[in-house]
Amino acid sequence: MTTLAHHSHHGLFTSGEPVRSWTVSTAKPVRYEVGFTPDVLDPRNPALAGAGVPGDGPAPPRRLLVVETTVDELYGDRLRAYGAARGLDFRIHVLTAHEQLKTMDAVFSVAEAMDRFGIARRSEPVVALGGGVLMDVVGLACSLYRRSTPYVRVPTTLIGLVDAGVGAKTGVNFGPHKNRLGTYHPAAQTLLDPRFLATLDQRHLSNGMAEILKIALIKDRELFGLLEAHGNRLVGENFQGGRSPGSVVRQVLGRAVHGMLEELQGNLWESELERVVDYGHSFSPTLEMRALPELLHGEAVCLDMALTTLIAERRGLVRPVERRRILDVMRGLALPVWHRLCEPGVLGEALADTVRHRDGSQRLPLPVGIGDAVFVDDVTPGELARAAERLRVYHSAVGEARHA
Amino acid sequence: MTTLAHHSHHGLFTSGEPVRSWTVSTAKPVRYEVGFTPDVLDPRNPALAGAGVPGDGPAPPRRLLVVETTVDELYGDRLRAYGAARGLDFRIHVLTAHEQLKTMDAVFSVAEAMDRFGIARRSEPVVALGGGVLMDVVGLACSLYRRSTPYVRVPTTLIGLVDAGVGAKTGVNFGPHKNRLGTYHPAAQTLLDPRFLATLDQRHLSNGMAEILKIALIKDRELFGLLEAHGNRLVGENFQGGRSPGSVVRQVLGRAVHGMLEELQGNLWESELERVVDYGHSFSPTLEMRALPELLHGEAVCLDMALTTLIAERRGLVRPVERRRILDVMRGLALPVWHRLCEPGVLGEALADTVRHRDGSQRLPLPVGIGDAVFVDDVTPGELARAAERLRVYHSAVGEARHA
Repeated sequence: MTTLAHHSHHGLFTSGEPVRSWTVSTAKPVRYEVGFTPDVLDPRNPALAGAGVPGDGPAPPRRLLVVETTVDELYGDRLRAYGAARGLDFRIHVLTAHEQLKTMDAVFSVAEAMDRFGIARRSEPVVALGGGVLMDVVGLACSLYRRSTPYVRVPTTLIGLVDAGVGAKTGVNFGPHKNRLGTYHPAAQTLLDPRFLATLDQRHLSNGMAEILKIALIKDRELFGLLEAHGNRLVGENFQGGRSPGSVVRQVLGRAVHGMLEELQGNLWESELERVVDYGHSFSPTLEMRALPELLHGEAVCLDMALTTLIAERRGLVRPVERRRILDVMRGLALPVWHRLCEPGVLGEALADTVRHRDGSQRLPLPVGIGDAVFVDDVTPGELARAAERLRVYHSAVGEARHA
Repeated sequence: MTTLAHHSHHGLFTSGEPVRSWTVSTAKPVRYEVGFTPDVLDPRNPALAGAGVPGDGPAPPRRLLVVETTVDELYGDRLRAYGAARGLDFRIHVLTAHEQLKTMDAVFSVAEAMDRFGIARRSEPVVALGGGVLMDVVGLACSLYRRSTPYVRVPTTLIGLVDAGVGAKTGVNFGPHKNRLGTYHPAAQTLLDPRFLATLDQRHLSNGMAEILKIALIKDRELFGLLEAHGNRLVGENFQGGRSPGSVVRQVLGRAVHGMLEELQGNLWESELERVVDYGHSFSPTLEMRALPELLHGEAVCLDMALTTLIAERRGLVRPVERRRILDVMRGLALPVWHRLCEPGVLGEALADTVRHRDGSQRLPLPVGIGDAVFVDDVTPGELARAAERLRVYHSAVGEARHA
C-alpha cells in the first residue's frame, strides 16, 4: 500500500511558524526466479533466449551478454551458435573478473558496453555468464544504469550456482574493504546449469563447496550428511555424476539453493541484521582481502567457519565429536582450516569492522550442533586467540591443506 | 507479503531431466519524511540533532555531515555552533558540488569520508547540506555504502527544496550522459528551511523556479496563478517575505513540494514510465550536458518546457493565450526559452536517448491548457524543428533572457 500523509500541524516552533510535513510510505515489489535448466547452451533449450524478458510480448532480437574471459574461451563458440540458431543478435562483452578486479572500474566497463549497445531500459535484459565476481559486477552495473536495468544470471562456477547467483546482492570492493559498495538488485531470472562445472578446476569446486557446507552447518543436518558421505567424490567428478532425479548431485545442489533462498526471501534487504547465512562471513571478509589473491572467497569462509566451530565447542554448543566431523569434512573438501592471518590482531580488526556492519553489535552466528545456529554478542579476544591457536596446532598436525 | 514458491515440476526438457525452480516474491517497505522546519541551525531547534535516527533510542553522539563548500563558507560557523550547543560531535566533510563534479569520484570522496568516520550501518545517518547536486551525490554514496546507509537531506537551494530534496532518486553523470548511474534511495528525513534561500543568488532562485513552474504547468493551475502574480517578486525577495501561514512564499513552496510528492509516492521506482514530473525532462538532459557548464538544470528544463508548450499549441492542446502567459512567466522569472542548441539535430538525439530511457516509446508529456498534461508517442522531427524555430524568432524579438 502506498500512502502520502500530509500533516499540517499548527504546533508552534520557536518563531511561531507552523510546521508542515509529509510522510511517504510505500513498498517496492520484487519478484525473481531461480531455476535449474540443464544444457542452457543447447539450441533446443529456449530458456536463455527468453530469460528476463518482461511481459508476454516477443523477446527482443538484440541481447547484450557480459561473459567472463575464461567462459568465453571455453563456451564462446557454443554461445554464439546458440544465438545464431535462435535468430538472436548477441553482442558479447568479454570481461576478466576476479577478486582483484572486482572494482567500480569493472562496473564502468559494463556500463559503457550498455551505453554502446544503446540498451532499452526495461525490455533488453543484460545476460551475465561467469562466476560470482562477474555476477556481482554486472548486477551492480545493471542496478546503477538508469537506476536499474533488468539482467539475467547464468552462473558458471559452483559458488555462483549456490550463492552469488541466487541472492539479491551486488557489489564491488572499495579500498581495502570487501563488497563495501553495492546494492540489492536480484536478476530477474537465474538459470542454473550444472554442466558448466565440468570444466571447473578442483580448487574452485572446493571453493563453492564451502558455501554449501555453510548452509548445511547452520540449517541442514541432512545436507551435512550428504557432504560427509559424498562431498569429496562430487568434487572429484565435477558434479557430473548421476543425473537421475534423486541423485546426490541434484540433492546437494537443490538443498543448497533452497536453503539459501529460504533464508533470503523474508530478509532480502537485511532489515534483520541477525542472518544465519552470515555464518562464515564475520571474519572472512577481512581475511580474504588481506590475503588477496591467495585465498578464494570460499576458502576464507571456511577459515571463519573452522574458527567459530571451535569457539562454539568451547562454549558447549558443539560437541567434540561434531567438531571433529566438521573439520574432517572441511579437510575432505580440501578446504583450509587455518591460515597465518588467523591471529588475534587481524581477527580483532575483522570483528570490529563486522560490528560496524551489523550496526554496533557482534550478532555473530555460532553453530549449535550440526544444522542449527545461535547468535552471540559477547565473543572475547581471548576466545578468538584460543580458537586460532588450536587450529594452528591442528593444521600443523594434519599437514597443510591444499591451499592453506 | 513475502513468499518463496518452490516448483518441482516433472515436466521434461530435452534431456529428460526434471526442472526445479523457485520464485522469490517480496516487497521492500520504504518510508520517509519531508517537512518544513524553519531555522534549522537555531540551537533551540531539535530537528537536525534527531533527524534520521532510527527507533526511539537516544540520538548517537557522533554525526558525519557532508557540506557543500559555499554552504560551509556561509553557514559553517553556525553549523558547528549548533553541534556544540547540542552536545554533538560533528565531523564535517566539505565537498565542492556542481554539475561538472557530479561524478563517481565525488561519490568515492563521500564513501571514503564514511570509511574514515567508521560509520555504523544503521544508526548514524549522514547529513547532507547543500544543493541538488550535493544531495544526489551523497544519496548515491549512502545508497552504495554497505548497500545502504541512512541519510538526512538539508537542501540549501530552491531546486533542492522543491525537487532534488524531496524525491527518491540519487545519481551522477557518466560519460556524456546526465544521471546515467544512480539508485532510488530517499533520505530518511528531509528538513526544508527556506531561510537558506536568503543567501542564494538570483540566477539559482530562477533555476529552482523552473521546477516549481513544471509542477504548476502539469497539475496545479492555482500555483501557476501564484507564479504569474508573484513569481518575480518572490525571486527578488529571495523568498524571505511574508512568514505568516497563508503567505505566498509558504503557499508556493508548499504546493510545489506537495505536488511533487503526490506524483512520486505511487510511482517511486518509476515502474510506470509515463510520469508527468518528467515534463521538461525529455530534451533537457542532453541540452544541459551539451551546454555544460553554461546552462543550469532548471534553465535546461525551461527550454524543454517552452519547446513542448509550442508543440502542444500546434496540436491544439494549449491555446495561444495560454502559450503567451506561459512564456511571459518564464521571461518574468528570467528563465531562457531558447538556446542555440535547440536545433533539430541535437533535439533529435535528445529524443532518441529519452526513448531508450522510456523503454522504446516517447511517452512525452505535453501540457494541456495550464495545469494538466497528456502523453504522446508521435512527436515528429518536423514538429520539433518548427517549435524551435518559432522560439528562436521569439527570443530574438523579446531580447535575450538573462542567461540564454
